[in-house]
Amino acid sequence: MTDTYSDTNSSLRTVEWKNNKVVMIDQTKLPNQLVFVEYDNFHQVANAISTLVVRGAPAIGVSGAFGLALAVLQSNATSKDELILDLEKAKKILFATRPTAVNLGWGLKKIMDVAKTGNTIEQIKELVISKAKKMADEDIEINKTMGKNGSVLFDDNDTIMTHCNAGALATVAYGTALGVIRATRESGKNVKVIATETRPIQQGSRLTAFELKHDGFDVSLIPDTAVGYSMANGLVNKVIVGADRIVKTGHVFNKIGTYQVATMAKQHGIPFYVAAPLSTIDLETKAEDVIIEMRKGSEVTGIGDKKTAPDGINVINPAFDMTPPELISGIITEKGVATAPYDESIPKLFKAN
Amino acid sequence: MTDTYSDTNSSLRTVEWKNNKVVMIDQTKLPNQLVFVEYDNFHQVANAISTLVVRGAPAIGVSGAFGLALAVLQSNATSKDELILDLEKAKKILFATRPTAVNLGWGLKKIMDVAKTGNTIEQIKELVISKAKKMADEDIEINKTMGKNGSVLFDDNDTIMTHCNAGALATVAYGTALGVIRATRESGKNVKVIATETRPIQQGSRLTAFELKHDGFDVSLIPDTAVGYSMANGLVNKVIVGADRIVKTGHVFNKIGTYQVATMAKQHGIPFYVAAPLSTIDLETKAEDVIIEMRKGSEVTGIGDKKTAPDGINVINPAFDMTPPELISGIITEKGVATAPYDESIPKLFKAN
Repeated sequence: MTDTYSDTNSSLRTVEWKNNKVVMIDQTKLPNQLVFVEYDNFHQVANAISTLVVRGAPAIGVSGAFGLALAVLQSNATSKDELILDLEKAKKILFATRPTAVNLGWGLKKIMDVAKTGNTIEQIKELVISKAKKMADEDIEINKTMGKNGSVLFDDNDTIMTHCNAGALATVAYGTALGVIRATRESGKNVKVIATETRPIQQGSRLTAFELKHDGFDVSLIPDTAVGYSMANGLVNKVIVGADRIVKTGHVFNKIGTYQVATMAKQHGIPFYVAAPLSTIDLETKAEDVIIEMRKGSEVTGIGDKKTAPDGINVINPAFDMTPPELISGIITEKGVATAPYDESIPKLFKAN
Repeated sequence: MTDTYSDTNSSLRTVEWKNNKVVMIDQTKLPNQLVFVEYDNFHQVANAISTLVVRGAPAIGVSGAFGLALAVLQSNATSKDELILDLEKAKKILFATRPTAVNLGWGLKKIMDVAKTGNTIEQIKELVISKAKKMADEDIEINKTMGKNGSVLFDDNDTIMTHCNAGALATVAYGTALGVIRATRESGKNVKVIATETRPIQQGSRLTAFELKHDGFDVSLIPDTAVGYSMANGLVNKVIVGADRIVKTGHVFNKIGTYQVATMAKQHGIPFYVAAPLSTIDLETKAEDVIIEMRKGSEVTGIGDKKTAPDGINVINPAFDMTPPELISGIITEKGVATAPYDESIPKLFKAN
């Protein structure tokens, strides 16, 4: 059974475990409606991931874990082995929804590892549910620590530009880049935010402007074309974005458009920060070996049902771009802030672990 | 009477005088339908200008002139003075449609000046109609000369990025920036084009991609966020854009987003050209005194009827930005190509006149 309700007063929690059900914000309804959906069946969670009811790598990782928690409750297994088999089946279905999302596999694996340590059906149920809940809580804790670490870099009365959505809606709650902005306000500083629209998927207008407005921030939306104008006219003091992957040399892979925001910031002497947990840092891969996902052209040739370009043209629609380290003032993590030279400062974050 | 028909084979002529009627492409229907509208009443032309059936400063200037040509045919005046009075009334109605457009006032004034030199009603009718047709032809001639002057700057197999629409659809035909691209192909060079979407109004996807595809160019559309990616990945050899105003120091005011395209081009050593007729150059005003039009927020918070941002947020929606001369490789005009230092080369273009 799927139950839906709306709630405009509480703080945003993207995904949550409540009375043996998974509760999620339906992000496909944003920004027009804040609707929560309740799931008691892991197939519903799998569907929610594939239809983008929930998105954002950390949020998807925890959603997968909660999916397995539902599967453990749904199972009619009469032995430990039968239950593990049921969980393996559910894991396969959940994993297939977004096979390229690293965090989904990570979240599912953590749950399976824990499940296998249980000796009885009851013990496995308890272990799985408590581990999934713990993973959700840990995601928030990491974001809050990251927020505190980053907040010292921002000043009272700063106007902060952000690109895409690295907010509560991309995580369990609080957010990475927007978590730093939240922590800055919590530390007593007054800040305003400029959100870029972030075409083609419009995470800036649909999600970032929505969640900041929801939390009472002064937020201004600009088209992606107005980044240069805003900086040239003194409207921006600092920039902060999230990241999808950071390599050891400090090259940051993030939402398409990040590179030009960083270049314009450098041009105007505006500090440009990246906020991401250590789990986003990839110490193995070289920048030139990271493959940038190309997405379908229809995201650019129209918006919803509205066609805004002629038929028969080519479309170049990369999901991400690469920002080189010389444009980055600092990388904010839950273990501290790395600064140039990044090939020295980034490995140090892991040693501090 | 308004008659409409469609025609997908002919070359694009934005506005034209045919059998004592004004024929226009209805740009509000693009890119989904190429529809031509026929007007025999100047009130219809006024309405077409105000509802953006026709847009682009040069195209509006000529449309105003054609509006007066219809007014002269509609008039039941029995004396020269009565006819001039009818024309003055029509001029007022046409001018009120877009009061800030410089070219509209310029086009209307040229027609009134000519009308006043006529001695009889028949003579005035002939003078007005032939002047309006001549103005349309001259606009095309200027664009073709500009195109030839610019074409030598482009090489065989270049991929040229352009922003917004400085094409046939912004002029009577042929275009300014896109005119240079057309002339480059006509000179025997093979070129491809990358068009930026140009949010919020999407002139790039709706108009530029449409008219280039119509004329058989290889055109690729990108979201405005993918400018940096395209340049960093070697997909762009040169950039060309139009201009709304150029001041004596070489500061170029053009569609929002031009400044960041120029900055990214500089960053990657890619030549960045501006194409505009001398009538776009303002020798009097200083760069810092040019007022940038701010447009309504609803252009950014939604697309058509679709709302893509929450209520209650601020919107910063400037129509133009300023590109400084150090980012510009050359300004292409019908009188030649100006290069730095612009405060010397730009005035010389007028002396060559």
